[in-house]
Amino acid sequence: MAEQLTIVKVGGKIVEAPDTLARLLADFAALPGKKLLVHGGGRSATQLASRLGVETHMVDGRRITDDAMLEVVTMVYGGLVNKRIVAGLQAAGVNAMGMTGADMDIIRSVKRPAREIDYGWVGDVTRVDGDALARVINDGIVPVIAPLTHDGHGHILNTNADTMAGATASALARHYAVRLIFCFEKDGVLLDENDDSTAIPHLERNRYADLKAKGIIAGGMIPKLDNAFATIDAGVSEVIITKAANIGKPGHGTVIS
Amino acid sequence: MAEQLTIVKVGGKIVEAPDTLARLLADFAALPGKKLLVHGGGRSATQLASRLGVETHMVDGRRITDDAMLEVVTMVYGGLVNKRIVAGLQAAGVNAMGMTGADMDIIRSVKRPAREIDYGWVGDVTRVDGDALARVINDGIVPVIAPLTHDGHGHILNTNADTMAGATASALARHYAVRLIFCFEKDGVLLDENDDSTAIPHLERNRYADLKAKGIIAGGMIPKLDNAFATIDAGVSEVIITKAANIGKPGHGTVIS
Repeated sequence: MAEQLTIVKVGGKIVEAPDTLARLLADFAALPGKKLLVHGGGRSATQLASRLGVETHMVDGRRITDDAMLEVVTMVYGGLVNKRIVAGLQAAGVNAMGMTGADMDIIRSVKRPAREIDYGWVGDVTRVDGDALARVINDGIVPVIAPLTHDGHGHILNTNADTMAGATASALARHYAVRLIFCFEKDGVLLDENDDSTAIPHLERNRYADLKAKGIIAGGMIPKLDNAFATIDAGVSEVIITKAANIGKPGHGTVIS
Repeated sequence: MAEQLTIVKVGGKIVEAPDTLARLLADFAALPGKKLLVHGGGRSATQLASRLGVETHMVDGRRITDDAMLEVVTMVYGGLVNKRIVAGLQAAGVNAMGMTGADMDIIRSVKRPAREIDYGWVGDVTRVDGDALARVINDGIVPVIAPLTHDGHGHILNTNADTMAGATASALARHYAVRLIFCFEKDGVLLDENDDSTAIPHLERNRYADLKAKGIIAGGMIPKLDNAFATIDAGVSEVIITKAANIGKPGHGTVIS
């Protein structure tokens, strides 16, 4: 049986506030076995952009990334947020290594073509080098991946962290029994979005289709779950959607397998 | 005989302007064999600080690093400058990996004690993990190191790039025949600072002492050369002080061995 690897994807909100970051680092450090972290940082990027007089434009939750915004996200995701996490994990005894897709060429993407909307320097993932990442992980290193990739022609591209986590999990499924945890503001996929106690413990494909048809699962949850089921198709053992505060706790969140 | 490793240290001025950066990346990519790059980024840090209304204070060429300035250098050195170099080298076929001292715990430092001057979040290097770096290098990876370290207790520390390059070269001298190239604005150590043709081709310890005593070598060159001779004492094969444009060219710059 393949060794287990836990991949945690955590959004900007958690890693940007000192108290929730400290809690996350402690919980992540306590996870047993091999692991990998993918983080966001959107709120800090928006804040820095605002301080620099760079306007933030979002379309469907995606950031329009012109030259000035690319500088901002490269600084915030690759520098400020990533290195804070790495230094914090090192202090917690985790041998973390911060990476973007450009580092060791682990994740390549292609600049999204401008159609109705020109997203600018935004990348869609085309290839994850799972072999290179597995060599790093097997050396006892814990990769901490910022939501930036590169196109192989010298351009950094702003890239969705959920997609990167899913693609990384899929690529590593050849090497490990991968458990992918998406941290979310709610404790899983809820039947009633205002009631955390209605989290669905286990979601299968048929039930998902049914809940989607009834409009119970809607909005931003749909791309997240489509991404989750795609990683299962790619060989990932299970996907868990839960609160960051519950990443180490069994019996919380929604399990997709 | 040990395999050769070339370590290049390049200052902020070169890596911050697109044209000199492009030239450096091409020249560095063309260097044969195993290699490692240490870069600065001070000018960009000062620029970003100014845009954010953070005042820059320098004492003896060292940046006073308060909380706000630490955020700036973490973003600029670890994010903007480092990732631009990494993406550029990847495009040139070099499998670069950006790192700070915190990543893989490769370089630790201790916060400089506040005496007459409180430098703030500035670190003095205490330990380089040459074994870990050698494993990375032997895997075909080219480390690209930003001038940031960590204290092992979760703090990033702003650290002098020359010192980091020297300490890294010294730690790797157990693994390789290390050639350390310090890129400088002039083509080496000059007998007449206004005449590039007066570069001393080869500088030995006795001549250095003599030229220092006569005041021909003075100012900021002295800590650079003291650092260079210290790395020779630590087992580095040769140190070259030259212009960035001449890093691949024999017969340029000043060789210390």
